[in-house]
Order: sequence, then structure tokens, then C-alpha cells
Amino acid sequence: MKTLREDPKDEVSANAKLLVRGGFVDKLMAGVYSFLPLGLRVLKNIEGIVREEMEGIGGKELLMPALHPLENYAKTGRENIDVLFHTESSTGNKMVLGQSHEEVIVPLVKKFIFSYRDFPLAVYQIQTKFRNELRAKSGIFRGREFLMKDLYSFHLTEDDFARYYEEVKKAYMRVFQRVGIGATTHLTRASGGTFSRYSDEFQTLTDAGEDTIHLCEKCKVAVNDEIWGETKKCPSCGNIKVKTARSIEVGNIFPLKTRFAEAFDLKVKDERGIDALVTMGCYGLGISRLMGAIAETHHDERGIIWPEAVAPFRAHLVEVESKNAKVKSAAEKVYKNLVAKRVEVLYDDREDTTAGEKFADADLIGIPFRVVVSEKTVEKKGVEVKRRGEERAMIMTVQELLKKMRG
Amino acid sequence: MKTLREDPKDEVSANAKLLVRGGFVDKLMAGVYSFLPLGLRVLKNIEGIVREEMEGIGGKELLMPALHPLENYAKTGRENIDVLFHTESSTGNKMVLGQSHEEVIVPLVKKFIFSYRDFPLAVYQIQTKFRNELRAKSGIFRGREFLMKDLYSFHLTEDDFARYYEEVKKAYMRVFQRVGIGATTHLTRASGGTFSRYSDEFQTLTDAGEDTIHLCEKCKVAVNDEIWGETKKCPSCGNIKVKTARSIEVGNIFPLKTRFAEAFDLKVKDERGIDALVTMGCYGLGISRLMGAIAETHHDERGIIWPEAVAPFRAHLVEVESKNAKVKSAAEKVYKNLVAKRVEVLYDDREDTTAGEKFADADLIGIPFRVVVSEKTVEKKGVEVKRRGEERAMIMTVQELLKKMRG
Repeated sequence: MKTLREDPKDEVSANAKLLVRGGFVDKLMAGVYSFLPLGLRVLKNIEGIVREEMEGIGGKELLMPALHPLENYAKTGRENIDVLFHTESSTGNKMVLGQSHEEVIVPLVKKFIFSYRDFPLAVYQIQTKFRNELRAKSGIFRGREFLMKDLYSFHLTEDDFARYYEEVKKAYMRVFQRVGIGATTHLTRASGGTFSRYSDEFQTLTDAGEDTIHLCEKCKVAVNDEIWGETKKCPSCGNIKVKTARSIEVGNIFPLKTRFAEAFDLKVKDERGIDALVTMGCYGLGISRLMGAIAETHHDERGIIWPEAVAPFRAHLVEVESKNAKVKSAAEKVYKNLVAKRVEVLYDDREDTTAGEKFADADLIGIPFRVVVSEKTVEKKGVEVKRRGEERAMIMTVQELLKKMRG
Repeated sequence: MKTLREDPKDEVSANAKLLVRGGFVDKLMAGVYSFLPLGLRVLKNIEGIVREEMEGIGGKELLMPALHPLENYAKTGRENIDVLFHTESSTGNKMVLGQSHEEVIVPLVKKFIFSYRDFPLAVYQIQTKFRNELRAKSGIFRGREFLMKDLYSFHLTEDDFARYYEEVKKAYMRVFQRVGIGATTHLTRASGGTFSRYSDEFQTLTDAGEDTIHLCEKCKVAVNDEIWGETKKCPSCGNIKVKTARSIEVGNIFPLKTRFAEAFDLKVKDERGIDALVTMGCYGLGISRLMGAIAETHHDERGIIWPEAVAPFRAHLVEVESKNAKVKSAAEKVYKNLVAKRVEVLYDDREDTTAGEKFADADLIGIPFRVVVSEKTVEKKGVEVKRRGEERAMIMTVQELLKKMRG
């Protein structure tokens, strides 16, 4: 794990600058990033939270491929959408890279569901998506390749779909709450595209965002630009006073009605034994984009301030000076104590780095607790603990530290 | 989770037939599979074991993208290898889908390592690979898209590389041991292709394999067909008596020497302050292929017999008959008890299925312990426990069951 001294020249957004400089991600080309060990830890923490909330609403996890047969898209009329990457097998089969998985999940589910007894059914995956974006310039916000959670639900009736759709909304808000962007993320009414009249987006307020939303000052529900142009009022309470702000879309959920069931003739026997087309919903949530949104909304001029639930480590142990044998051995002891108590700790024991550089790196990386072992703390038989984002540091004993870290 | 009644018509190998029928995987097209909830659980168990062993030899996990710029392959002379899938961005940039990641990891590492102090360095990922195979017909053995663990190590000297290479060999054998194919998997000397004189493969004995190996009867080391043709003896002990057998390659490890460091001018300062080209090794292990190899070598005519460490669940609870209220309530109690003790349990509470069908499904899915609750077991105030692969069933109390399941 290493940080970079300078802002990357080719990044504009704060999230990309800080994530690249902090050694979380590395840009391979526009819209295509590697996740370095620190960044992967954040990603996995986000994944874990999303997985728990999806299981909580009955989602079953599976994993679908990225290579899709183009012929499936001919059936849904989406073979010409411009975000598709195209490729071809050496045997001449035309394929696209999945930007969403309706064309795979519907024929798959068709092999397994036959009657009303097979409901409720909701499946999800956390998987890499590909979108051939013309512009891909906002760091990990708008990727050509990105990690996404996509959930698909299947229903016999519109009512059952509507009930589940509300459940998913709540689960999404719990995700945003848990990863630290609950207060700044708003359910936003958007157009439904070709599928239905409306869909819902989740938009996080940030000046770095690419979208504009109109946020009701009463009920905190928002509408996007397009809907605002049509309705000029809050879809929830009818209020006409709104705040207009920049935002980034971190999730969106869609009623699909029977559009995809029709394309693949997905029918099941209802309670009366009659064939019924299946009603569907699809629910997207950008995992890597969420990481960008968190970085964008949780930083200061020195670096990222990770919310505890997604931070790559809980404690950042800094020894000042590493060449002082007493300090070194005290720091190693603290490290072993933390590891023994299963506290996730990043240990900066570099010998060729100054205290100032180590502190700057700790601020840049943004782990919640900085724990310093120095000559001064060794004298006082303790460690110095500072929360990232706060100025005040406290001297405490190792026992007190362990208690604090576990709490 | 559902099983299928009949063998899939388009699958030849036992692993594909059983994995498809058992509801572990679904074929989207030749060489491209979805992993269904049961299969994904197996995959994650394998991933967990691989991850532990890679961390054990100092590997740091990261995650690199699937979209690679073609220009990087021009630098290594691999832009025309036939297994590459090609695609293009809407801005006209030529890209390929990663079949391996030397062309990404070397320029990435170059940004972070500068001197001898930055060693040892080994990074790995568990990530989806793409290979444009002409034939893809052995189930999940030879995929066009598949999950792989790839580790890359970086060294200042050939000696340091050689030492690490031996460490990786041992870690690989521990992985194969832990997932249940240790006894049938052999280190196999193979040709090094364009990189070096030799490389090493790990080959699992199975008649369904696509390779042929020559296995030394003394030291259990093997050579592949090509090397056998040249040497006609065991590379380890010189023995000339070998057994010839079919096998499937589950891993391979390569000395890369300075080939890729040269292509990207990856140099660091050595202890004397002199620029030195970095020596590399790369180490592949097929995660989804391993799942196929386990299924292929652990099954009988009724289905798969998962080794405990990778089984999707530990216990398969079957209630016979679900419509009998006493049986149902007893089974639900057993289920709650198992869940409370954190035993992973698959609960078959289907009401429209016969006991015979449930038992057949339990055999097909192959979870280590089948736990039956029936009128008979309720009378005896216990449950009937049978190990998959054994004939003998035992009646025991729920307390005894809980003890057995945790052990």
C-alpha cells in the first residue's frame, strides 16, 4: 500500500483525485479502474452491507456471466442500444458484454418457475457491468466497467410487485444510511424510459454530480429535471417549493411490468390454473459508484474521512520514530494487541519516512482512528488517539484503546 | 433452489450433467455459465480457501479490470494471440477482454515500486477471465468466461524468485488438499511456452480430463505429454516407470523471468543503487474449474458428494411428510436449533414432493449430512442422520445432532 505525492493530472473530481492519491484505485484507461488492496477492502465492506440488506428482503444471490448472446437482445429489441460493447466468439457467435441482465435472468428463471407456488422470487448478484459510455470522466462515478448489485423480482400481480417495490426502497435507504450517505441521499422520481411511466432513482447530493434534482423542502423527496419540467411539484406532498441541487445517482429501481416476460414468453400457472405473464421489477445499485459517492461527500482538503462501516481499517497505527528501538517495540506490542482483539489495523512502520509524511498519509487514507506511538507516548505509558476529521488527540492506555476500538 | 429431472442434453461430462441437474449452474451458451445460489455457495467456499492460502504466502488482494487497452498487448507481442476477445469503445479505442493480467499488473506496479526496499511483493486477485476458445465443451472445465485466481510475484533476483516459487507450490498443494482433491492432484512438469524452458501444472486425475500425464510411480510427480516425449523419465527422481492417465489442469505456475519487465521497462534500484530489471512469476488457479474437478472426482450415479470444506451447506434437513403437523413442527424445531448454532442448513419443506423425490434430490445435491424428520423419528424423539456416500443411517437426539454438526 502506497500513496502518491501528487494529484493525478487526468482526474477532475475530488473522489478520483483522493482515491488515486490515497492508493485506493488506479486508472487503467478512461472509465476503467483497478481496485488496489485498500480500495478493495472498502468495496468489500460496501458489498457486505448491500448483501445483508438484499438477503433481508428475501433476495437469493447468484452470479451471471458478462458475455451475453446478442440474439437474446434481438428478442427484447435492445440489440442496438448504444452502451453495449460488442464482441464475437472465434466460432462466429455475436456477443455483447452485459450492461444489465434482464436478457439472461428471464430465460434462466423460465427454466425453474412454473406456477404460483414458485413465488415470491427475488434474485440478485454483485457483478461487473460494462457500458460503452461516450464520456467517462468523473472518476469512478461513470465507469465503462464497474461493480453493480442488480436485483430482479418476479410477481404474479401488479399489487404484489408494488408491495415488494416499497420494501426494496426501504432496504436501499438502509444501505445508504449504513454506508454513511443516508442524510444526503434522496428518493427521486424519474421517467420510466420505455418500460413504464415512472421509475425511482436514489440521488446523493454533491457538487461533483452529473445530475440535477429538485428537492422538496417539506418531505425531502426529489424529482429529476425531466419530471420537474412536466409537473413542477413534489410527487409526494404536492409542495411547489423545491431546492435545486447537483447530485449523483447511486441507485435506481424500475417497474418492468410484463415487458421482459413477453419477450421470452415467461408464463406461470396462477391459482386458477390459468397461464399468466410474470410481472417484474429490477433494482440497480452501483457498488463502485457508491464508493466514489462516499469519498466525494466525506473528505476535507487533506483526504478522505471514511465512515466507520466502510473504512478499509478501523485503526491506523503510526510509529514515530521507527528507528528508536523503544518506540518500535512499544508500537509492535500495540499492533499485536490490536490484532489479537481482531481490530483491523493498518500499521505504518516505515523507517524511511518522516512523522509529518506519516501523518499526512493517515489523513489522506482517512481511517477512522489514528493511533500514534512516539517517545512522548512511551514516556506516558500510553498511545495518542485521534479521530480522523477531529483536531483533538487523547493520550490513553493500551487497555483503554482496545476497549474503544472494539466498541 | 430447484433441481432438474433430466440430464441436460447438451452436456457430455459428468461434472456438467450433475452440476446442471443439481441446480448449481446453468448454461447460457457454450463455455458460459451462470452460478445459481447453490453453486455460488460452493464457489465462495473455494474462494475462501484460496484466499487464505494466498494471504498465507504474503499475497495482497486487489481487483483489476476485464477491459484492457490493446496497445499494452502490442508492447508484449501478445496482441495476436487467438484466445483474446476483441471489442472497441465508442470513442474508437481498441480493447481486449483480459485472459490474464500481465499487461495490466506490470504498468500498475511500475507506479508503486522503485527500489529493493519495495520487495517482497506479491499481489493476487479472484476475477473473471475471458478466453475465446474454439471448443468449449467440457462443462465448466473449459470456459469462455470463468473465475480465476491469478497471483503475480516480483523479485530482484532469480534466487529470490525460485524460493518463492517453491512456497507457492506448497500453498497450491494445501489448497487442493483442503478442497478434497489433494490425493488425485499432481505437480506436473510442462513446457514453458515462450517464457522459459519449464513451467509447472497441477493436474487432477479424471477420465473426463482433456490432458494426458505420465505419473511417476515412485514420487508421484508427473510430466505432461510434451515433456514425456522429450525426456522419458521422472523430472524429480529419474524413474522411468510411469502410469499414463487422463487429467484436468486445475492450476499452473510460470517463471516469467524479466520478459514483462522488459516490455514495460520495469526497473528498480538494487542495494547498490543500480537499476535492475524485475524478475516475475505468475500463478494461475481456476476457481470455477476447481468446482468442476471436485464434482467430477466426487460423485456416484446418484449425484455429487461434496467434500465438507466446499459443500454448499453442512446439513440437508428433509421432512417426511410435510403435511403431517407433528412432523412439520418437529422439523421446524430442528431447523431453528441448527440455525441458532450457526450450522448451515438447507431445509426441504416442500409440501408437493414425495419422500422419494426429496431423498433423490438430497443425493443429487450432495450435502455431507442428510437429516430426516419423519413420523418414525418423531416417535423415537430424534432425527435420522446419514452421511452422503454412506449407506448406514443413525437415529440420534437433536442434542447429539447439534454436537455432530459443529464438530
